[in-house]
Amino acid sequence: MNDKIIVLLKTGEFVSGEIIAEKLGISRTAVWKQIKSLKDIGYEIESVKNKGYRLILRPDIPLPQEIKSGLETKIIGKDVVYFNKINSTNIYCKNLAKENAADGTVVVADIQEKGRGRKSRAWSSPEGGLWFSVLLKPDIPPQNAMILTMAASISLVEAIKETTGLKPVIKWPNDLLINGKKICGILTELDAEMDKINYAIIGIGINVNNPMDKDLESIASSLKNESNNEVSRVELLKNILAKFDKNYDYVKSSDYEKIRNLWFSYANIIGKKVKVKREKDVLVGTVSDVDETGRLIVKTDSGFEKIISGDVNFL
Amino acid sequence: MNDKIIVLLKTGEFVSGEIIAEKLGISRTAVWKQIKSLKDIGYEIESVKNKGYRLILRPDIPLPQEIKSGLETKIIGKDVVYFNKINSTNIYCKNLAKENAADGTVVVADIQEKGRGRKSRAWSSPEGGLWFSVLLKPDIPPQNAMILTMAASISLVEAIKETTGLKPVIKWPNDLLINGKKICGILTELDAEMDKINYAIIGIGINVNNPMDKDLESIASSLKNESNNEVSRVELLKNILAKFDKNYDYVKSSDYEKIRNLWFSYANIIGKKVKVKREKDVLVGTVSDVDETGRLIVKTDSGFEKIISGDVNFL
Repeated sequence: MNDKIIVLLKTGEFVSGEIIAEKLGISRTAVWKQIKSLKDIGYEIESVKNKGYRLILRPDIPLPQEIKSGLETKIIGKDVVYFNKINSTNIYCKNLAKENAADGTVVVADIQEKGRGRKSRAWSSPEGGLWFSVLLKPDIPPQNAMILTMAASISLVEAIKETTGLKPVIKWPNDLLINGKKICGILTELDAEMDKINYAIIGIGINVNNPMDKDLESIASSLKNESNNEVSRVELLKNILAKFDKNYDYVKSSDYEKIRNLWFSYANIIGKKVKVKREKDVLVGTVSDVDETGRLIVKTDSGFEKIISGDVNFL
Repeated sequence: MNDKIIVLLKTGEFVSGEIIAEKLGISRTAVWKQIKSLKDIGYEIESVKNKGYRLILRPDIPLPQEIKSGLETKIIGKDVVYFNKINSTNIYCKNLAKENAADGTVVVADIQEKGRGRKSRAWSSPEGGLWFSVLLKPDIPPQNAMILTMAASISLVEAIKETTGLKPVIKWPNDLLINGKKICGILTELDAEMDKINYAIIGIGINVNNPMDKDLESIASSLKNESNNEVSRVELLKNILAKFDKNYDYVKSSDYEKIRNLWFSYANIIGKKVKVKREKDVLVGTVSDVDETGRLIVKTDSGFEKIISGDVNFL
């Protein structure tokens, strides 16, 4: 209900409680209660007797009404679910998928208590960051799922660049770096048959304004640290969803080359020397490609190696 | 409890109710009740005053105690869950996977009310067939998941051959044919991240002794029809699990070549002319390979085509 009041409130002029009550078909006491709940969330609202209510400041919280306001996407973000605190947005999103949630549904939280990265590594998700998951239901086989992670990556690069002026670089397979430090990670999860994806969950974590752990300072950073400015999470998320909607359209129309070309231009790894730590050995070579299933193709002295996972360092 | 009594009962000689009661630490009335419940399931048990109980006939029902009796596997079938009737063994197995069930857990049912094949097609699963799912948790990336379907396929070929003398042929991607008719289908489902499978469910349906729909007679058959003999579902399932355990071991030790070579020898498709009906077109060519991600590589006049799904017909 309070998301409907927000649409009626204005930042310039007062709107009377009577008009709000009438438009929403509720009592004036109910209006007052909803205004109070908005203030509790973080909205600044001025109340003046005989004039009504006036919006002073919207909070920078990824609430559905804030994200959806002015968002002109076809699929991504048509449904947004927000939590102040949750175990993991990917887990919640998975459950929504099972209940047949729509393609493009977004789950976002201020705090994740059990945020996870690849290989079940913990992902610190305190207040001030952007932690969200996007449910996708494309008609593609699981062998092509990497194109979804690629589409997410380029959307993040484009949106971060537009919102902050910073230029992230994609680090295969699923991180974004700024000045060599990790800013963002992506965890793609699949539910699939051998020839078709039932659904994919793209989990995204971005260090925005959240404080960074001291012991991670040499390898990770936040958009605030790198830009020396507080970054609006709401603006950033809206921008990401808009870019993702556009790039997801390329996936849907099978224009993988468009996505791959953009990905390669932002990743800048072809011809780069790399060292790959694998479970059993260390491999040194030159990147020659990322194939359609997402494997890094590395040319070594003894031939071409296909890398599925592993810690990759540029030399 | 009644699975423990079955272990104590013998087919040759009588075992007294007193001994059973003592060994299981229950009353003689409880023994009598358990014997009655075994009879209700389908066990034939003779009771003679002052002598005790004697097993006359075991039912051909894939009950855990029957499947596990004498089964010497390392992983597959260490846990067996049986249902007389269930919606779908794959769905139940998925839920077990989420509750952290063990690698190799088997879910089997006499009747599936909502059995499914690929592309959400209905799969008729009446009494008399073998409908089961195997939970696998191998440490492999989703790109390699086809090796699991292949391992299942060759296990089925080997076990059916050994149990019935019939020689099934593998039809890419996931069916088994005898005399050109479909006998068995496999539905592999994945829960995965981009570089690791969380778990895979191998759903298997075999027409054993179940009656076949008249309108499917030209394309599908049962082991009973093809061999002119009733086939023991218990013996067949035990045999399949034993073969699968051996072949799953090759997956675990990364000996994919072993599995692929067997698969190709049972599939017999290299060099065969095929016609592939796809969503938008029909393609005619010669099979040159099945690649590591499971795609059928078909050589056409205009080059090589990679087929992920589609209806394939041999010419």
